[in-house]
Amino acid sequence: MFSTVMIANRGEIALRIARTCRELGLRTILAHSSADRDSAAARYADEVVQIGPPAARRSYLNPAAIVTAALQRGADAVHPGYGFLSEDHDFAEICTANGLTFIGPPASVIAMLGDKAQAREFAERAGLPLLPGSRGVLASGTEARAVAEDIGYPVIIKAVAGGGGRGMTVVREPGEFLRQYVATRHTAQALFGDNRVFVERYLESARHIEVQVFGDQHGNVVHLGARDCSVQRRRQKLVEESPPPGLPAELVARMGEASVRMARMAGYVGAGTFEYVVDDDDRFYFMEVNSRIQVEHPVTEMVTGLDLVREQLSVAAGRPLSLRQEDLQVRGSALECRINAEDPDRDFLPTPGLVSDYLPPGGPFVRVDSHMRAGARITPDYDSLVAKVIVWAPDRGQAIARMDRALHELRLSGDGVRTTRDFLRDVIAHPLFRDAKHNTGLVEQMAPAGAPTDGRRVDVR
Amino acid sequence: MFSTVMIANRGEIALRIARTCRELGLRTILAHSSADRDSAAARYADEVVQIGPPAARRSYLNPAAIVTAALQRGADAVHPGYGFLSEDHDFAEICTANGLTFIGPPASVIAMLGDKAQAREFAERAGLPLLPGSRGVLASGTEARAVAEDIGYPVIIKAVAGGGGRGMTVVREPGEFLRQYVATRHTAQALFGDNRVFVERYLESARHIEVQVFGDQHGNVVHLGARDCSVQRRRQKLVEESPPPGLPAELVARMGEASVRMARMAGYVGAGTFEYVVDDDDRFYFMEVNSRIQVEHPVTEMVTGLDLVREQLSVAAGRPLSLRQEDLQVRGSALECRINAEDPDRDFLPTPGLVSDYLPPGGPFVRVDSHMRAGARITPDYDSLVAKVIVWAPDRGQAIARMDRALHELRLSGDGVRTTRDFLRDVIAHPLFRDAKHNTGLVEQMAPAGAPTDGRRVDVR
Repeated sequence: MFSTVMIANRGEIALRIARTCRELGLRTILAHSSADRDSAAARYADEVVQIGPPAARRSYLNPAAIVTAALQRGADAVHPGYGFLSEDHDFAEICTANGLTFIGPPASVIAMLGDKAQAREFAERAGLPLLPGSRGVLASGTEARAVAEDIGYPVIIKAVAGGGGRGMTVVREPGEFLRQYVATRHTAQALFGDNRVFVERYLESARHIEVQVFGDQHGNVVHLGARDCSVQRRRQKLVEESPPPGLPAELVARMGEASVRMARMAGYVGAGTFEYVVDDDDRFYFMEVNSRIQVEHPVTEMVTGLDLVREQLSVAAGRPLSLRQEDLQVRGSALECRINAEDPDRDFLPTPGLVSDYLPPGGPFVRVDSHMRAGARITPDYDSLVAKVIVWAPDRGQAIARMDRALHELRLSGDGVRTTRDFLRDVIAHPLFRDAKHNTGLVEQMAPAGAPTDGRRVDVR
Repeated sequence: MFSTVMIANRGEIALRIARTCRELGLRTILAHSSADRDSAAARYADEVVQIGPPAARRSYLNPAAIVTAALQRGADAVHPGYGFLSEDHDFAEICTANGLTFIGPPASVIAMLGDKAQAREFAERAGLPLLPGSRGVLASGTEARAVAEDIGYPVIIKAVAGGGGRGMTVVREPGEFLRQYVATRHTAQALFGDNRVFVERYLESARHIEVQVFGDQHGNVVHLGARDCSVQRRRQKLVEESPPPGLPAELVARMGEASVRMARMAGYVGAGTFEYVVDDDDRFYFMEVNSRIQVEHPVTEMVTGLDLVREQLSVAAGRPLSLRQEDLQVRGSALECRINAEDPDRDFLPTPGLVSDYLPPGGPFVRVDSHMRAGARITPDYDSLVAKVIVWAPDRGQAIARMDRALHELRLSGDGVRTTRDFLRDVIAHPLFRDAKHNTGLVEQMAPAGAPTDGRRVDVR
């Protein structure tokens, strides 16, 4: 097995990875930008190496800087975390070519799944249900509009290189199509350096359900149940849970089987997430695969008892998966709330600054993954996630009450720093959420943030 | 159900109880001494009432002050936590007589079990195995010495009103017996206002195993598995775990059945712990019953998924137990380390003071129950427990590695404040502990505290 892992990421996930490495007796080297030299992960890692300035393009998105540092310092494996280079098949390739174990799927698998049009075709061959949409990449706006007419509005235009909720536009009016088509291509070029797009029917009322999959190098593939990530704001997930509430167990089982089938066909190795939308009639449609660990992986850990990062490391070292499909037990209900340093009263504007007071919640079945401390600096250079609060309970009602209690306890403040904590308490207190009748439109349906709310305390007796 | 719970305790357990009350939508009133007016529990409770000065005898041990405050403030239930008045049958009686629901067994059951000689006799009638010892209370030193001769040395002299490791003396030399007999009676009088003692054979090499029992008002009694609390220093528990490692499952099952049988005969209601010693030949012997929640209850929560304080409240409100014996599932392995503000280099002298820096460990399967924060004051008035670090993992090896990781992360410092954190890391790294071959003598067998140690990191790959 490898003995020294370079962590090519930052924030809570860098710390998360370092924790498991420590438990396994693996040495860690954190590759960090100059903005993160005093971060929690930097203090935690056995060794640190500065790979560039704050701008991600010159540090966390710079494969050469990372691989050079890994080789110089004697790392023999690289964990990319999520975001940044985690789904960059070139990066995976460069790591492997330099004798570094890349903690993720083979580069070829990342490449295929990273091309959303190609992944869609592959899913179709694997027999997964798809929403009506274009086949392959669209050659022109006229062709694209014809496809949209054929599918019927609303449609969604998606970047082939997109994913994770970025690079997509919903079109409800045929007259708007061409303008949005051009705009989306423009955005895709700017974001991903690739302006190819495709078109799909858009479901106004849907739930976002995803399946956690794991494969090893010996051809074993299992799923670890599903997560509901329907609570989103501008396609960014805010609250996640496992198992998905209110879905027939038989549906979740079929989604699990479909995901495993496709993963097996693709030669999938490591942790992967198969994302679906589920409509009001409990039909599911394949969306995309994220070929990395997810932000929301802890809810799966809480209901399965597994450490997914440990499993990633183990599989990357060539070991077989630690469990067979028939051994999977999903116990109780887990929720995660993402706490962002943003001001809900100012349209969720990020609020960077110096944290003067930080105290995470504690007690039974509460977990916090956070890189905060009194004295930590929330930088404006990266995303605004400052803490993930995760709870477990025997049932969902108790889990919601426990989450409200945990959010109540969380203390995180500093000059100018605001968080989404209270906003999230309103979300989980919402009747639609409590009754599991919400969909991806929940946050838009809620009263404007900052409006007075009552009855924040959840009473589930 | 009652709606307002007075918490008649302090420190981490007062906060622990308040957390569950909050999840249940129950209002809390904290009864606190003047030393605890700015404590975590006081900040957390819905309401606070000062019941006396720092001296426990005039506050936390003052039934009249607590019951008066409860009635004045409109509480309808009292949770006594552990220690203080939690096993005081008069206090339970006074609560009940004043219309307050006492969160614990009936006063008559507390009284019977609180008399250790009577509990021993009751256990014998229930068919539980006992170490050879005196029958009933001893009338004189001469009689006591005759019993000791009969049993064979070493023997242990125990206060009838003792328990929890206090008021007991081991005698190894017959010539020492009478002197120790007189001394123990003297101590018992001073500690408990009751100088009655009894004599039992003493096992030099034994494990301390206890069974968590729960009864409801409908005659249902279950056990929730066992805990190993063999790591002790001067009879005070330092590390606890569930399930007990290295014991035959069949033995643990028999201990569970025996405990349930006795609890049922006694009309037990609420949470209770049946304590046993287990000798090198896997024979178990009844010691005593603690008729309250234990410090170490979280390890049982981690392996069963239950919230024991929630269960206490539910049972006290007249509801049936939430699980039947056949539904009990013990999953994985849980460990708890008690962090005390003590200096291991100065014979574990308490180190009260102002906490300037506090950051609890986080991440997967780590739980912290603590009343600390930056700015908290550790007072010299009470015990020195400042945090309980609890971890869970699929197996014991992983749990030990996770605990070492969690202890590594814990930050708690202040002017003059020392903790037992590093000492506990040495304990769990000890080969006897790792191989589960330790007994209650482990800490004495260890190298003197403060001596240099190597290999603190546990590598369980």
